[in-house]
Amino acid sequence: MNHDDWVRNELRKLSKSLGFRYTPLKEIENRLTRIRNEMKKQAMEALLVIQKMNLYYLSGTTQDGFLFVPLEGKPLLMIKRELERAKVESSLKDVVALKSIRELPSILQSHFSKLPNSVGLELDVLPVQDYFKYQELFPSTRFMDASPILREVRKIKSPFEIDLMKKAGEIGKRVYQEAKKILKKGMTEIEFGGLLEATAKRYGHEGLLRVRSLNYEAYTWHVLSGVTGGIVSQSDSPMGGLGLSPAFPVGASLKVIRPHEPILVDFGTCFHGYQADETRMFSIGKMKQKFVDAYNACKEIHDAVLEETRPGADCEAIFLKTLQLAEELGYQDSYLGPPGLQTRFIGHGIGLELNELPFIGQGQSYPLEEGMTFAVEPKIVFPGEGSVGLENTVVVTKKGYEILTPVSQKIIQV
Amino acid sequence: MNHDDWVRNELRKLSKSLGFRYTPLKEIENRLTRIRNEMKKQAMEALLVIQKMNLYYLSGTTQDGFLFVPLEGKPLLMIKRELERAKVESSLKDVVALKSIRELPSILQSHFSKLPNSVGLELDVLPVQDYFKYQELFPSTRFMDASPILREVRKIKSPFEIDLMKKAGEIGKRVYQEAKKILKKGMTEIEFGGLLEATAKRYGHEGLLRVRSLNYEAYTWHVLSGVTGGIVSQSDSPMGGLGLSPAFPVGASLKVIRPHEPILVDFGTCFHGYQADETRMFSIGKMKQKFVDAYNACKEIHDAVLEETRPGADCEAIFLKTLQLAEELGYQDSYLGPPGLQTRFIGHGIGLELNELPFIGQGQSYPLEEGMTFAVEPKIVFPGEGSVGLENTVVVTKKGYEILTPVSQKIIQV
Repeated sequence: MNHDDWVRNELRKLSKSLGFRYTPLKEIENRLTRIRNEMKKQAMEALLVIQKMNLYYLSGTTQDGFLFVPLEGKPLLMIKRELERAKVESSLKDVVALKSIRELPSILQSHFSKLPNSVGLELDVLPVQDYFKYQELFPSTRFMDASPILREVRKIKSPFEIDLMKKAGEIGKRVYQEAKKILKKGMTEIEFGGLLEATAKRYGHEGLLRVRSLNYEAYTWHVLSGVTGGIVSQSDSPMGGLGLSPAFPVGASLKVIRPHEPILVDFGTCFHGYQADETRMFSIGKMKQKFVDAYNACKEIHDAVLEETRPGADCEAIFLKTLQLAEELGYQDSYLGPPGLQTRFIGHGIGLELNELPFIGQGQSYPLEEGMTFAVEPKIVFPGEGSVGLENTVVVTKKGYEILTPVSQKIIQV
Repeated sequence: MNHDDWVRNELRKLSKSLGFRYTPLKEIENRLTRIRNEMKKQAMEALLVIQKMNLYYLSGTTQDGFLFVPLEGKPLLMIKRELERAKVESSLKDVVALKSIRELPSILQSHFSKLPNSVGLELDVLPVQDYFKYQELFPSTRFMDASPILREVRKIKSPFEIDLMKKAGEIGKRVYQEAKKILKKGMTEIEFGGLLEATAKRYGHEGLLRVRSLNYEAYTWHVLSGVTGGIVSQSDSPMGGLGLSPAFPVGASLKVIRPHEPILVDFGTCFHGYQADETRMFSIGKMKQKFVDAYNACKEIHDAVLEETRPGADCEAIFLKTLQLAEELGYQDSYLGPPGLQTRFIGHGIGLELNELPFIGQGQSYPLEEGMTFAVEPKIVFPGEGSVGLENTVVVTKKGYEILTPVSQKIIQV
């Protein structure tokens, strides 16, 4: 059979029967309107979207290609591979083939009366080599940085997006519910983490947790037990864990999980690109009281953050309040990491990527807004002993918040 | 306990007991010598290494930081997070703290008599925003592209590296051996893939498969059955599969695996950052004869490639020969993808990343060299029906090759 014919006739049927949700045109149009409002403010005549998650956000597909968004007129989706599939996945109407980026100027010229004077590019992630190529292809174009406006628009989630995040949260809920049957004496951290991941995948978890960064890599299997929970590593996280090697020195290790240790499971799930992040504590037998007490402190800080969560609340003020509370509770030297290595945020925006706006942290003085989604994660770390924490993903609502990761917050003892 | 003290006194012991292998100084020195030889040819006075895999290759650590390599004199490792851990992981002696990249000029000035006139950066992956920052910090420095010489040096693997790739291959072997006990009637592709991954992780597989690219994402769970094996997607691969959503439209899906279908399992494993890539075919009950025949053709092409594999053989010539062989075998319209969508390579270099040199493909006319490692992967695709393939990772030896993924190549029927 011809591949094009198969994709045109069968792909939508098969994918829909397996739960694919395509982004509706109305949703894409709303996003485009919002990005164009920002472009206008910057006097940016057009936007060339290259990075995969921005492409998905503004076109509905992650096929290999580019989206050109003029300030006025229809956006043009240009696809290298695979064209027919992009036509099924994207609700945009103008979708054309592109063999190589060398064709970009001629294709744009043939679709638009003239090339724009200024074009926004995603300079936060675009490699320098590629930038030089665009300069060569468009010698009279002024390139601007479009990454701030893309981050700005993406920070407010629509009901469609929030629904996908809830689905990610539901996968997480099933994983944590089954986890107590999975955890067994004698298991290593990575064995437990791997089985949790297999469970999540069975329910549709996509495996990759995306981060907007050259070097920062996210992963699902952040399972730390006892001593490994006290180790800080490369990541901007209160504790990194031991990991499996110097090439991957974070997350679960081959250490055997022992009875009574605090077992921290920070497990992200992903559905249709949208992530939910959550942390729960486990133990085999009763957890040592020191860690139960510290966990209760995390819970108190977590609840205090949520009590402040509503439109208008200042992100930095919330963070600073948690520092004060941690001190009152006697954890100033272990809250968010060991002294000298403490992270400076208690929450991070989350959606298609793990490091979106807002950050609830130091130097982040701006208000929460309705539709923002973030993970709140108080953690307490004792080097050489272990760590505890609690994490939920929430959306800011008109009057407060809603939790997208609705699993019991009790310590799970097996 | 103090975190610094714990890391200094305990980290090496604990990590070694769990199988960590740190890169010896001698190995790092050899790599530095080779990179400096290339720098000399380019009149590059220094190299600033930023990207995680290059940092690991030249320093032994992936902690968050930078490595500065002057043409002469000692390299300087500057670490943002976590310094003490980097000192354990790297065998380099000069390791200092760095709070922010703003400190780079003053730290370099204090360690070296003068700042170099020309500095190599990894322009193939470095984001434009970062590049502008370096230009601002070092206004009189000429920046050069160091990515070609880094790729060039990394393409020849040392015995130390090949040994780590063998270990990755051994993990793969155990996974494929256990796979026949895991695959059950009624399973979905992603369920099977998730359980294979859990098995691999139990043996130390690191989960992430790294690729050097802005948008290309690799993943371990490329499990396609019947019709999904016939679907091309965004990736430069003969078949992409259906995937789980438009956000992740590649790899295993929620489709149930049916008896007699060809089940293609392309499963990469990673040990200490080094990858092994391999593909085997499975079926529940007897596989339909059409696919058995196509698989035998893949095996013939695979063997023909290996017969040519030795130092001095031309990469493009090997590829062209496989096209001819595929035609003789009657698969010219399905070899490496459906017509119009066929990939133009039969092998890709592999090591710390999935897209290293050499490429055994069109336009890649250069000789194989001793110490190169690549995955050879003939695949045959029938849209609407399914696909088959065979893949092994090999190292080029003095007189030929050695397979690093030593699993039986027979179709695995359960």
